[in-house]
Amino acid sequence: MKISVYAIPASIDDRDLKERIAVVIDVLRAASTIITALNNGCKEIIPTAEIEEAIMLAKNYEKDSFLLGGERNAVKIDGFDLSNSPYEYTPEAVKGRTVIMTTTNGTQAIRKANDAKEVIIGSFLNAEAVSRYIRHRGDDVVFVCAGTDGKFSLDDILVAGAMIDILEGMNTEMEMDDLALVSLHLYKSYKSNLKKALENAYHYKNLVRAGYEKDVDYCIQLNLFPIIPVYKDGTIRISQNFQG
Amino acid sequence: MKISVYAIPASIDDRDLKERIAVVIDVLRAASTIITALNNGCKEIIPTAEIEEAIMLAKNYEKDSFLLGGERNAVKIDGFDLSNSPYEYTPEAVKGRTVIMTTTNGTQAIRKANDAKEVIIGSFLNAEAVSRYIRHRGDDVVFVCAGTDGKFSLDDILVAGAMIDILEGMNTEMEMDDLALVSLHLYKSYKSNLKKALENAYHYKNLVRAGYEKDVDYCIQLNLFPIIPVYKDGTIRISQNFQG
Repeated sequence: MKISVYAIPASIDDRDLKERIAVVIDVLRAASTIITALNNGCKEIIPTAEIEEAIMLAKNYEKDSFLLGGERNAVKIDGFDLSNSPYEYTPEAVKGRTVIMTTTNGTQAIRKANDAKEVIIGSFLNAEAVSRYIRHRGDDVVFVCAGTDGKFSLDDILVAGAMIDILEGMNTEMEMDDLALVSLHLYKSYKSNLKKALENAYHYKNLVRAGYEKDVDYCIQLNLFPIIPVYKDGTIRISQNFQG
Repeated sequence: MKISVYAIPASIDDRDLKERIAVVIDVLRAASTIITALNNGCKEIIPTAEIEEAIMLAKNYEKDSFLLGGERNAVKIDGFDLSNSPYEYTPEAVKGRTVIMTTTNGTQAIRKANDAKEVIIGSFLNAEAVSRYIRHRGDDVVFVCAGTDGKFSLDDILVAGAMIDILEGMNTEMEMDDLALVSLHLYKSYKSNLKKALENAYHYKNLVRAGYEKDVDYCIQLNLFPIIPVYKDGTIRISQNFQG
């Protein structure tokens, strides 16, 4: 199985997506929030690149059947129901509802991955489930890290490393590209203390400085939810074809 | 001092070059060959992106005053004097001569870095000299890794890590971006055995498979030459302002 990791969506050669499963990673915080929401009974998530697009889409939904969620510069958007904090996506808030969501890095990465055979959303929260799913499918994989403001982001790389480590633990035969090798090495070095790996990282420091340390602590928990969120036709839903 | 590392030239935001020193790294093999040639008395190196451009430029030079060097797909170009192997750039071959050189990844990276305050060429061979030069100058630094065929290349990252490690050893105050942190961690993990870090890396494996293991072994030697090659007005020459 070929394993590629891209640090930023813009660097992906579209040919590398064909016939592969894309795992989109934006661990702080979009992917972690999406996974939490779906685990808490959210019906579906519709990621949009722009705020205006989210507001336009919302007009197609009945009152109380949807929520607007997301952030710009880590802060809740004016007029939106929820920010990008996983703690807001409680069962009480999201159960049975559609969430229309726009975030700075994550939703853009999901759209960039669209040419893949299948697009799934991964974070530490569902790392083992994603690795088992990949192994079950047997297809080549490309990890599409969202990055932060268009730059290499250590947090996302670490999630790719966690999934590759789990695949290795299952004796999966892998042909890794260079960034996959580096991601795996980094994760192995810090797996007993992920926070230590992140303490000097840009995105982590920014979120902590902005008062989101509790969110970050939440997002770096491993394997809480054995679900596979699949992005298809513009919508993210839990895969029903896989029991994690 | 701010330290940024870019894995591929295409991902650089040009604003990140302004007022900074750019260190261009293409350790296998362009940067190592350039440094070797200059150390062996080569007068200057003119990097060109295209083969045709190299041939056109050569028409401006007297017979015997220049050499054409470089590669495509690691192989010497038809009609050229030298390939991209550092072993060919002996004092006998290059002393007093201009080398017009085109390589797959390295020469493109040098041109992309052109908006920086100063562009220097680095590899393991001159890692300590480059680190001392950076420290002496005190400017912010951006390491521009050439990458391999447009992708993240572990070998170049490792050189950036070596230079950052040396800067750290000199108690330089550094504000590192995420890829700088990762490069430093990777280098520290493998500094006692660089070949071990490279054995599964794409570019390294390709060169060994093509019969260039001797070149690779040469290129991963640390601090052989205390010289600073500077790229200015289209030409690379040894800096005369710094005694390494």
